[in-house]
Amino acid sequence: MTATHPSLPLYQQVAGHYRQAIAAGTLAVGDRMPSVRSLMGLHEVSLSTALQACRELETAGLLEARPRSGYFVRAPSRPALAPIEEPAAGLPDPAQYVGIHQRISAILARSQHRDIKINLGGACGAPSLYPTAALRTATARALRRYPDLFGSAAEADGHPSLRAALARHALRSRIQLAPEDVVVTHGCTEALNLALRAVAQPGDVIAVESPTYYGLLQILESLGMRALEIPCSPQTGISLEALELAAQTYDNIKAVAVVPNLQNPLGCVMPDARKQRLVAWCEARGIALIEDDSCASTYEGETPLAAAKTWDTTGNVIHCASLHKVLAPGMRLGWIAAGKWQARVEMLKFGLSRPNEMLAQIAVADFMGTGAFERHLRRLREQLRNQREWMAQAVAGSFPAGTRLTLPRGGLHLWIELPAGMSSETVFEQVLAHGIRVMPGSMFSNSNRFDHYLRLNCGNPREPAIERALETVAGVVRRLAP
Amino acid sequence: MTATHPSLPLYQQVAGHYRQAIAAGTLAVGDRMPSVRSLMGLHEVSLSTALQACRELETAGLLEARPRSGYFVRAPSRPALAPIEEPAAGLPDPAQYVGIHQRISAILARSQHRDIKINLGGACGAPSLYPTAALRTATARALRRYPDLFGSAAEADGHPSLRAALARHALRSRIQLAPEDVVVTHGCTEALNLALRAVAQPGDVIAVESPTYYGLLQILESLGMRALEIPCSPQTGISLEALELAAQTYDNIKAVAVVPNLQNPLGCVMPDARKQRLVAWCEARGIALIEDDSCASTYEGETPLAAAKTWDTTGNVIHCASLHKVLAPGMRLGWIAAGKWQARVEMLKFGLSRPNEMLAQIAVADFMGTGAFERHLRRLREQLRNQREWMAQAVAGSFPAGTRLTLPRGGLHLWIELPAGMSSETVFEQVLAHGIRVMPGSMFSNSNRFDHYLRLNCGNPREPAIERALETVAGVVRRLAP
Repeated sequence: MTATHPSLPLYQQVAGHYRQAIAAGTLAVGDRMPSVRSLMGLHEVSLSTALQACRELETAGLLEARPRSGYFVRAPSRPALAPIEEPAAGLPDPAQYVGIHQRISAILARSQHRDIKINLGGACGAPSLYPTAALRTATARALRRYPDLFGSAAEADGHPSLRAALARHALRSRIQLAPEDVVVTHGCTEALNLALRAVAQPGDVIAVESPTYYGLLQILESLGMRALEIPCSPQTGISLEALELAAQTYDNIKAVAVVPNLQNPLGCVMPDARKQRLVAWCEARGIALIEDDSCASTYEGETPLAAAKTWDTTGNVIHCASLHKVLAPGMRLGWIAAGKWQARVEMLKFGLSRPNEMLAQIAVADFMGTGAFERHLRRLREQLRNQREWMAQAVAGSFPAGTRLTLPRGGLHLWIELPAGMSSETVFEQVLAHGIRVMPGSMFSNSNRFDHYLRLNCGNPREPAIERALETVAGVVRRLAP
Repeated sequence: MTATHPSLPLYQQVAGHYRQAIAAGTLAVGDRMPSVRSLMGLHEVSLSTALQACRELETAGLLEARPRSGYFVRAPSRPALAPIEEPAAGLPDPAQYVGIHQRISAILARSQHRDIKINLGGACGAPSLYPTAALRTATARALRRYPDLFGSAAEADGHPSLRAALARHALRSRIQLAPEDVVVTHGCTEALNLALRAVAQPGDVIAVESPTYYGLLQILESLGMRALEIPCSPQTGISLEALELAAQTYDNIKAVAVVPNLQNPLGCVMPDARKQRLVAWCEARGIALIEDDSCASTYEGETPLAAAKTWDTTGNVIHCASLHKVLAPGMRLGWIAAGKWQARVEMLKFGLSRPNEMLAQIAVADFMGTGAFERHLRRLREQLRNQREWMAQAVAGSFPAGTRLTLPRGGLHLWIELPAGMSSETVFEQVLAHGIRVMPGSMFSNSNRFDHYLRLNCGNPREPAIERALETVAGVVRRLAP
């Protein structure tokens, strides 16, 4: 372990070593952690490094310090909360056609026009999670290298260097792309707009996960398309059985739009076999498959996650993603590889917003070409894992009985099931009064099935202000609990 | 004059002085221009400055050098070409519903996949026309000032400093806007997409000028809306009479989308009285008015052009514009002030591409806050006027008999009427073979009315390469002429 992650800070390498030992059961619950002194000898590290490693594991909820006797392996926090409920079989009610655009917009507007001190509703991490200094340097370099950049029209479909870097990056998800297969977009949001307009018309039905990312529901309504919500398992993703049932019921399903890796908000990952079945099913049915793969790089597992497009042999899968959550929230860079709709998407992008400005593209391509990119992703995964774990721990310790949670293995969110009957919109309103923003579950569906769910952002490092905010949310939830 | 433009280079101040004298008739055709020596004395300038001033006027086609006798006022080039034809009265044929998207895209693709050496088809100017160095400096300053910029999500609807700068800038067009009335977009293209989606649905009819900007026709088709082409006078803009006739014929016109100032491709300016009538007519008919005002700042006249929104009292006018052509082609910054549709546009923008990245916005707001912005615009107007004049001159001197041209008083284009029966697409294809790109008139209408028109870009300073390219185009046209 120590050897495999030389780029990680020493204390994290040591912590990682014992994290594995605990995960493997080599160190069981109740076992005594080697003393700080012996850690110093074993790993040839300083006292402060050894201490930091133990604190890291304590923060992650894996160790507990017992006065005058050292650190012990504690029962992991996961059992403290039951996993969230599996969806009922069959299809949801026709509520799926009720517009949500106004509702989402109203909620977003409410929080935009409030003074938000702590944002636990956001989609990305704190600035400290991103390599802002390196990106500033790369940007300054690009300005020197291309003095006429601002005076020249941007290149169609994206800067060649970024299209090439993204094609290389896609190899990590086991996708084979040529640079020309990639069109750079304004975030994944624009990519999804392009994908949907490429394959469907107003009035068409698009099958989506339930719950699903509210942004997708908003896009669908703004395009006059109809969202058909398919039950999605917190463990294995969209239900292929319900999808088949839906296809038998509705004959105008034009596309399936999903997040196979670290779904938003559930955080679930579709097993590769199911991804493969989904791709084949869409192909056989002549239904386009649109995947949003923006979070895969945050997966904590050893093997990178494969995208659904990996199994695409006919160009029927449209792959959309962005660097928003994993590299630079402030750069709004996304992309689309549209398979057999590539030409149409290029046309639509030109008609929608013309090519993206070049500066950020050149700077990011520059950064992605260095080892710093992989080192950043490794650190990001580590930080997000710690943040998810301590937040899950805090929720387990402070939310009322009946709260359920499935700890995801990546991403920036926790999807929390509150005791039945609770209204997350009431929670939203009450914590907003404290200058804290959370995402009510009602935004993630056209139905009311998720009104008692809450999405919390784990993008903030553990700090007193965040802990206090989380305690405020917990307090509000406790008071409202039946 | 000299006093009023202190920021202009001295030789341009001197040239401007005599340009006015010639325009006013104080110096008539054939008159002798004061000798270089007397210019030195009169204006207290150096020999080289006096010479440069004369060459400037010669370049503009206002003076001619006679060996051993100095400079003389020459017949202006305009009479050399008849103004282009006024449109026939009444409504165009149903050809307006033929899709043009594929056609435009095919032409754009053809030129994108060729190695273009000289682009006379583009929409903006050469890099040397824009303050790239100052914008680079402002960008570097923004990077220092906001170290976390790339790590933070962008602010909704645009950076406050740019929204404020754009609201100030709008005063020049006599529009009163608060910063909150402005939404920053990815160029005017995104602004037009938002405007159309805010007021109309697929299947609705949008009245547009004929000829009109091909990008608008592309957007309309991609949104499933139908373009109704209204005849547009090369002198006074869209025909209000034909518009009234159209409204009596079609009951589903949801918006009128026009470029009242320096129309693309005609270059005409609607007289204020007609702008005012158009605004009132749309208001009375309950039809939205969408204006693209991206080129107004290039108007050569003394008084800045008023936008149609100047006369909007009910929020029925949606004002769209960009800085693409007048400040920074490489920054893709546009904006929209959507009047009574503002909230809907904010919602649509969020669902379409989220807020624009901040860096360019901060840098441009910074630059717009300095006197350098006005100085840049003054220089740009002067340069573009010279470039339009010498190019018109060159066309007059090298295109075949029957060629017609109305010299616009601003903008970056010449709209050239070739002898009847000629095909500008054939011209396009043949000059493309030489690595030169021009815009065939067929792109600017769903009908074939403008197939024998050509749009040439005047954004390039007079240089041998450009002169040769123009001569190549002229040669091709001459060979193809009947």
